[in-house]
Amino acid sequence: MYTSSLEQTLRRKIDFKTKPLGALGLLEKLAFRIAMIQKTETPVLSDPTIVVFAGDHGIASEGVSAYPPEVTFQMVENFIAGGAAINVFCRQNGLGLRVVDAGVRYDFSENAPIIHAKAAPGTANFLREPAMTDVQLAFCLEQGALVVHNLRRDASNVVGFGEMGIGNTSSASVLMSLLTGLPLDACVGRGTGLSNEKFARKKEILAEAIRVNGVQTDPREALRTYGGFEIAQMVGAIRAARSAGMTILIDGFISTAAALVAFRMQPNVLDNIIFSHRSEEQGHALLLDYLGAEPVLQLQLRLGEGTGCALAYPVLKNAVAFLNQMSSFEEAGVSGKTEEQRIEE
Amino acid sequence: MYTSSLEQTLRRKIDFKTKPLGALGLLEKLAFRIAMIQKTETPVLSDPTIVVFAGDHGIASEGVSAYPPEVTFQMVENFIAGGAAINVFCRQNGLGLRVVDAGVRYDFSENAPIIHAKAAPGTANFLREPAMTDVQLAFCLEQGALVVHNLRRDASNVVGFGEMGIGNTSSASVLMSLLTGLPLDACVGRGTGLSNEKFARKKEILAEAIRVNGVQTDPREALRTYGGFEIAQMVGAIRAARSAGMTILIDGFISTAAALVAFRMQPNVLDNIIFSHRSEEQGHALLLDYLGAEPVLQLQLRLGEGTGCALAYPVLKNAVAFLNQMSSFEEAGVSGKTEEQRIEE
Repeated sequence: MYTSSLEQTLRRKIDFKTKPLGALGLLEKLAFRIAMIQKTETPVLSDPTIVVFAGDHGIASEGVSAYPPEVTFQMVENFIAGGAAINVFCRQNGLGLRVVDAGVRYDFSENAPIIHAKAAPGTANFLREPAMTDVQLAFCLEQGALVVHNLRRDASNVVGFGEMGIGNTSSASVLMSLLTGLPLDACVGRGTGLSNEKFARKKEILAEAIRVNGVQTDPREALRTYGGFEIAQMVGAIRAARSAGMTILIDGFISTAAALVAFRMQPNVLDNIIFSHRSEEQGHALLLDYLGAEPVLQLQLRLGEGTGCALAYPVLKNAVAFLNQMSSFEEAGVSGKTEEQRIEE
Repeated sequence: MYTSSLEQTLRRKIDFKTKPLGALGLLEKLAFRIAMIQKTETPVLSDPTIVVFAGDHGIASEGVSAYPPEVTFQMVENFIAGGAAINVFCRQNGLGLRVVDAGVRYDFSENAPIIHAKAAPGTANFLREPAMTDVQLAFCLEQGALVVHNLRRDASNVVGFGEMGIGNTSSASVLMSLLTGLPLDACVGRGTGLSNEKFARKKEILAEAIRVNGVQTDPREALRTYGGFEIAQMVGAIRAARSAGMTILIDGFISTAAALVAFRMQPNVLDNIIFSHRSEEQGHALLLDYLGAEPVLQLQLRLGEGTGCALAYPVLKNAVAFLNQMSSFEEAGVSGKTEEQRIEE
């Protein structure tokens, strides 16, 4: 196998730090990955930003969520006011935050500090018809890319994607099942916390929706039929961030479903993606396995909003810091293993 | 069961934040734990500090480690110079760092910025005789406590304990086996990275040591016979930090073995302990299970030095921040679930 000289240099640099071989585990993999993305031995994380895409879902009117649909816009107002979990974690960890109205069923003030990119006030109910039109999908893919281009222009090189949208675990579950071929039952979870009865009903509704609209296995068509505006904008954003050479942090189940769609459209997006955490939502662990992901954190989260990205970011910062700042055995005058011992392993 | 009014207030405060019930997973448990330790609804983490205890081990002369014994003092010099992983992570995450010479086989300069608390230049080889004398053990327990008292006086209320000592996974493995009753084979791992042959030899040596010195199940006697000076000082430090009402972060396998000894001497130390991570060292997962621990991170680390504590600290900070800063449903004007839904669960 061809190994680039940067790859060799990096492996050497990591291995000769004052620690046993491999002793920093996942941090070594993260440092290596970020350095390869940035094509440098001395990566830097600049202007890290979380983008939260918000959108409403027609399917929410079927009672697939434990919360009423108006919680989507109320939570966006909460983001604006600075009181949500993602606001707290961004402030705490030195991350910027952008909130995008991808398609919320509410008229925000024109002066609200959000990015106005509304495709429509909520998707259509995919129990009856496709969630969006071709035009709406194209608009979303482009808007998501535009958000990322603006961030990149402002010198950000690391971006995390989160979402808010009552009903969107339903979209994500269907997309997962159609694009992985896994049975729907393995892909549907309790979302924000459904009772047993409502959980059973959610599964029935989603199975029925697939009977109505068909088994779409083309990623674009599946996204149009069963997606959400926030998911579609995330797909556009992920692809744009890959093209811009940025490090991409993916959040929970819905964000990972967007990564799956992007991956099926353009497999090389995975080169730049770091999966921030494994959530409690049923299906997320399975989806991460499908994508060959090794998530940074396992904190039993099931919140979305990009909170997993914001919480994982300090680990990335530490990974880059050890690569740039830690001494080698030679620099520190510390005895390594003998060459014989190294070969033995 | 009696539930304190602080406990009730905290559960309510956490449950009414703008998120689904329990959606912040482990962060909710951490916030609750830290608030209970500090006996307040509004906990604050002050002057967080990592203490690295260093000591040499007589057993190291038997070839139980992949590295030569002089690496202990060389790594302490590396800590002093600021080039080790723990230096990088402390700087990165805003933690103070204290290095304690608990018993390194080396004469550090009197002016070196370390805490001089040398019990002796390395323990005795416990393949032939107990690792330390009664006097040495008492000295170590007291010195460890003294370090913590000084930190507490300087206003620190959260402390993480790490270690450096070539050969100390051998001590930790024997202590684990004796104090948990688990078979020695389940408690011995490859440490810094032993070859198959040396790993097999390590297990034989430790089994032989137990035949020579006896199956000590009293925690103090086990610690004296098979411990290390750095482990004994950690035990004293953990108990003192519990008494001082501090939040205690435990690092990897050796640090957890010290927590086990402290727990067997004084079970309530666990009230104040947060286990920072699950390492790759065989035995650590089993030991964490034995202690009922739910580690914050799983990053495949096997380095020690307190690195897991330093990496987990940002998660604690985020946990405290959400408790103090996040809005409630009422404050944010967000619709919660209906009362009926809440009761249903």
